[in-house]
Amino acid sequence: MSPVSESTTPSKVELTDEEIFAGHLGGKLSVETTTPLDSQRALSIAYTPGVAQVSRAIAADVSLVDRYTWTNRLVVVVSDGTAVLGLGDIGPRASLPVMEGKAALFKSFAGLNSIPLVLDTKDPDEIVETLIRLRPSFGAVNLEDISAPRCFEIERRVIEALDCPVMHDDQHGTAIVVLAALKGAVTVQNRDITGLRVVISGAGAAGVACANILLAAGISDVIVLDSKGIVSSSRTDLNEIKVDLAGRTNPNGLSGGPAEALAGADVFLGVSAGTVPEELIASMAEGSIVFALSNPDPEIHPEVARKYAAIVATGRSDFPNQINNVLAFPGVFKGALDAGARRITENMKLAAADAILSVVADELSVDKIVPSPLDPRVAPAVAAAVAAAALADGVV
Amino acid sequence: MSPVSESTTPSKVELTDEEIFAGHLGGKLSVETTTPLDSQRALSIAYTPGVAQVSRAIAADVSLVDRYTWTNRLVVVVSDGTAVLGLGDIGPRASLPVMEGKAALFKSFAGLNSIPLVLDTKDPDEIVETLIRLRPSFGAVNLEDISAPRCFEIERRVIEALDCPVMHDDQHGTAIVVLAALKGAVTVQNRDITGLRVVISGAGAAGVACANILLAAGISDVIVLDSKGIVSSSRTDLNEIKVDLAGRTNPNGLSGGPAEALAGADVFLGVSAGTVPEELIASMAEGSIVFALSNPDPEIHPEVARKYAAIVATGRSDFPNQINNVLAFPGVFKGALDAGARRITENMKLAAADAILSVVADELSVDKIVPSPLDPRVAPAVAAAVAAAALADGVV
Repeated sequence: MSPVSESTTPSKVELTDEEIFAGHLGGKLSVETTTPLDSQRALSIAYTPGVAQVSRAIAADVSLVDRYTWTNRLVVVVSDGTAVLGLGDIGPRASLPVMEGKAALFKSFAGLNSIPLVLDTKDPDEIVETLIRLRPSFGAVNLEDISAPRCFEIERRVIEALDCPVMHDDQHGTAIVVLAALKGAVTVQNRDITGLRVVISGAGAAGVACANILLAAGISDVIVLDSKGIVSSSRTDLNEIKVDLAGRTNPNGLSGGPAEALAGADVFLGVSAGTVPEELIASMAEGSIVFALSNPDPEIHPEVARKYAAIVATGRSDFPNQINNVLAFPGVFKGALDAGARRITENMKLAAADAILSVVADELSVDKIVPSPLDPRVAPAVAAAVAAAALADGVV
Repeated sequence: MSPVSESTTPSKVELTDEEIFAGHLGGKLSVETTTPLDSQRALSIAYTPGVAQVSRAIAADVSLVDRYTWTNRLVVVVSDGTAVLGLGDIGPRASLPVMEGKAALFKSFAGLNSIPLVLDTKDPDEIVETLIRLRPSFGAVNLEDISAPRCFEIERRVIEALDCPVMHDDQHGTAIVVLAALKGAVTVQNRDITGLRVVISGAGAAGVACANILLAAGISDVIVLDSKGIVSSSRTDLNEIKVDLAGRTNPNGLSGGPAEALAGADVFLGVSAGTVPEELIASMAEGSIVFALSNPDPEIHPEVARKYAAIVATGRSDFPNQINNVLAFPGVFKGALDAGARRITENMKLAAADAILSVVADELSVDKIVPSPLDPRVAPAVAAAVAAAALADGVV
């Protein structure tokens, strides 16, 4: 099954509770056999006695496990259920429909096998340890919906412990698509991305990763807001992650809150569950760009934002410019696995952002700064670019 | 896909290495989506924003996880790779082709989703702990190819820790099919099973479980042989498991080796990797029954055994009376999950054995004491009987 292109005119999808719950009955995934086991011959090949030959071969040369089992192309979607969508810490069981959905998207968009593994522990030591023990069972790890700041330590430690692609999608999937969309926006505006003054509302998983990728893309003036105001070196209430962020952002040493940050800013990037008042959007510089990505309710309604901003994007499918992680993660993991990459580098993420945008390079407009989430051209383009970057970075 | 009936004349399947390895290329499993994600509507139901409704509902009533995710019907096939087929401790990666095969059989014969989880640890504490942490991810545990005597402790502790069906198939799958076949044999011979004198060669996972189920089926004279001879209370070299076994078997207090045990015995059950000399089979009682189940090479060639024994069974598909666990485990887990059983009781195993035999009750002969492993009637019959036994035992 391949995803098909949508009409370019977004429309609101009205869903009833009844059809949503019916769509989840029994779960959204199924494990199938690649060949039917319906004869003595098939059974003798796939199971005893034939399988012993294959096990013996892998015992003699463990690298053959990549060739003769599914694990090498299997992405585990791992969560502890501590930061699920906008719902917060609802636990591993309640997170499962999201993780199954994610696994379904891996298959639908990148042809990768994927299974959810949800953990009945929030302890970073135990999460890392569990994945180390399970390492022979999979080929890549998509960390999902793990709360900040725990997610930073957990991702860092899992990357260090495992010799395979690992990515916390809430951080880097979001950051990749945001960078793609911002590049799309400045292309439409014929502006240089590096000169933008960017304000990020939210210093959680997505906020920190977006700050990092925008800095890596050459934007020097990035300001991050948390619930207490501008993250700056003058504050004494910052955790380790935010201290680090303060040292690399806010180059003009601003202090204060959203009002001080947004006055004259070029870009508002909302990745919190908060709201932003209309008058602050009005205070931004001319030609401003607003990405109000809080889900399901954007920080400001896109029609209101559009009164002041030149370009507006949200996470919603019923308005133009939908920023959706599905543009990134299927292709990123496919590219990494295609290349046999041992990890996912910053260059692979930057390459993914460029590849997403490349697909609509000739179609860009104020109302189309990124491809549709259903555009079937995206994942193959991202995968190819990510695989090439992995080779260039020497991580294969 | 349903398994189809085989011809009743078994034939040797000649397999080339080439076709065996080709049959394993890329692995034997695939994760599919239950509905295609090819439209904005499908995406909105399966993923954001629709999925949030389902996650919210489970957060409010965690029992709904059984209804709206796949986990409730998902069997994890768990191994540490310490006792794989006859190959021994070849490690988790080399065990994977077997575990994938097992998962494929769960789908093919019982329609159950199943995934392999192989562990890079042999420590019983760590294995149990890992499954406890992963508990929200699955609905049942098939322990597989874990070496004895560790397997006994691990299975006991996993059963105690998890409120779901757990079974070490090398123990109980084998035991169930052996009991079914032995009941088939005595039916053909018009004998009473309880009066048999049974000698079990092998005191590992299968041997201990077979002894237990035969005792539970009312056979009082069971003798177990390990590599040192008859397991008896007079020995001082027995581990805890064998001390327990010695107290419940060998009612006449025999000592010695295979010769002393087999003289005049009614049943030889081989579940070791050893061999049994022809003259010892010749020393058994008239009308003897020989189950030489070592794989791929039976303890005695079936044609040689047949010179003395009235009924011979092996694990081989190219001789009559193939004893294969696939007759048991798909239906046992399906029945347990259908009933919502919290564990698998002894009565459920006994019911499974009777159900296996019931399928061929009208077809029994010296050369057909159990159904073919491909008989599609078996798993549904086993599942129904196991589910009924679970209800009767009050474990649902």
